[in-house]
Amino acid sequence: MSKLLIVGSVAFDAIETPFGKTDKILGGAAPYIALSASNFNIPSAIVSVVGEDFPQDYFKTLEERNIDTSAIEIVKGGKTFFWSGKYHNDLNSRDTLETQLNVLADFQPVVPDNYKDAEIVVLGNLNPSVQLSVLEQFSVKPKLAILDTMNFWMEDAFIEGLREVISRVDVITINDEEARQLSGEYSLVKAARVIEKMGPAYVVIKKGEHGALLFHKDQIFFAPALPLEEVFDPTGAGDTFAGGFAGYLTKTGDISFENMKNAIIHASNLASFCVEKFGTERMENLNREEVQQRLQQFKKLTQFEIELS
Amino acid sequence: MSKLLIVGSVAFDAIETPFGKTDKILGGAAPYIALSASNFNIPSAIVSVVGEDFPQDYFKTLEERNIDTSAIEIVKGGKTFFWSGKYHNDLNSRDTLETQLNVLADFQPVVPDNYKDAEIVVLGNLNPSVQLSVLEQFSVKPKLAILDTMNFWMEDAFIEGLREVISRVDVITINDEEARQLSGEYSLVKAARVIEKMGPAYVVIKKGEHGALLFHKDQIFFAPALPLEEVFDPTGAGDTFAGGFAGYLTKTGDISFENMKNAIIHASNLASFCVEKFGTERMENLNREEVQQRLQQFKKLTQFEIELS
Repeated sequence: MSKLLIVGSVAFDAIETPFGKTDKILGGAAPYIALSASNFNIPSAIVSVVGEDFPQDYFKTLEERNIDTSAIEIVKGGKTFFWSGKYHNDLNSRDTLETQLNVLADFQPVVPDNYKDAEIVVLGNLNPSVQLSVLEQFSVKPKLAILDTMNFWMEDAFIEGLREVISRVDVITINDEEARQLSGEYSLVKAARVIEKMGPAYVVIKKGEHGALLFHKDQIFFAPALPLEEVFDPTGAGDTFAGGFAGYLTKTGDISFENMKNAIIHASNLASFCVEKFGTERMENLNREEVQQRLQQFKKLTQFEIELS
Repeated sequence: MSKLLIVGSVAFDAIETPFGKTDKILGGAAPYIALSASNFNIPSAIVSVVGEDFPQDYFKTLEERNIDTSAIEIVKGGKTFFWSGKYHNDLNSRDTLETQLNVLADFQPVVPDNYKDAEIVVLGNLNPSVQLSVLEQFSVKPKLAILDTMNFWMEDAFIEGLREVISRVDVITINDEEARQLSGEYSLVKAARVIEKMGPAYVVIKKGEHGALLFHKDQIFFAPALPLEEVFDPTGAGDTFAGGFAGYLTKTGDISFENMKNAIIHASNLASFCVEKFGTERMENLNREEVQQRLQQFKKLTQFEIELS
């Protein structure tokens, strides 16, 4: 079976939403990506870094979902990356209250030998130089390299590195505002075309509650977000989306555009669970029946029977 | 075959977008609704009012699409309703520059005898008292009454009348912000449930470039807007959507939820043409091949093949 390598932050998050607030809980891109991908029962490993303050319990949470955590470096005397944020009432925007990079500031990723030939790799949101370093450690070019990034790395200090890593991946996942910023185009159709020219053959534009678009040459596929009565905490939804996308492609081993459509649906489906509870809570014990049942909802939500002549 | 009655403003519009501006052109809810519905080759008629300044050519434009204009009253010495607006750069919002109600201020709609038994009626955006008066002139309760409205009628002076007309229709089409305002709920799922309790068994929430949702009891269906390289002029897109929805249901005579899904797709499809040119221009000579070809794009955009176990 194919293997999935996940590179991304592992963090403490402290989150405040209109519905409540948390103390420090498990966060960071990598746990969300990995927990989401774990629904496909594939071999996966995280490359990341934490401090000595990182609880053993959080490793267990990941390992119970068969995620290999042995390449998460523990820095002696170091402190784990910390982020805290507060969402506005509509949950569509948030303020960052505090960011402590801590051990993430000097992170030198080391890809374990048994994952240097992983077929699929997700480069979660991180400094582009770290993402590049991971790609360079592969012994075989991965079948599919998926990059997630954000506007922070589009600033002058990082844009060169970001352009370099973008030029070397197959898929980029990016939100709508960031796609506009990166491309200089307002129309998402035009933005995707500009970004495709930068390297990735597939461009996924995430629109949050408004769904996600997959672009490849002249083809476009769209998946809505499941309309929910209440979004409790949007943290990690984008990473959960990326993890579901990568996990499904790893499981099926089929990276055709037609199969990527299915991957986008699985990605949206899994993200719809993530936002139902604080942090990773909902994703930690999601079961197959729940996932299948909600996929059925996605079908009902989007499939129709118009006969064309 | 079933018949479609359309009540709504007929107007002069003057539109400014980042791409250019128009002099007075054909506008108002009714022409957009009727032109869109005309793609289904059904008998339809407009009930409305214009002034003596309304050009014969505009009647012809409608009649060439087999729209019965004989119930558009021409007020001697009167002036046609005039609206002018300017869109912001993102085309998602606009400022109204001028509104002259003119003959619309005293509009007393008269439903022609041969349409008092129309199976489907669209009550386009108008004073709720005018919409109510139309419903009361029917000799037989229509099979499906579809109401379109906007936030202007949710002000204190009109809300009672609006609630009354909402309580008497089967379908309401309303945009997302207006659904929130009318229901007092931010979540669109909750908003639709509140609005359903006000009367209409079917609630359609229009999200512009983010698509449209159809709600009925516990069922939800979603249609995206077609991703376009450029939106040229959004004027009339919502009315075109309503006209496509009503036209397809009139043509098929099937008002089941399953068939309404198809109607929503046809509605989105037709709206995608409307925004490509100024005003009604693109809708005036749209042909069957163009419509069918773009429906195929909608299928590719949204249909997938996940096998569920």
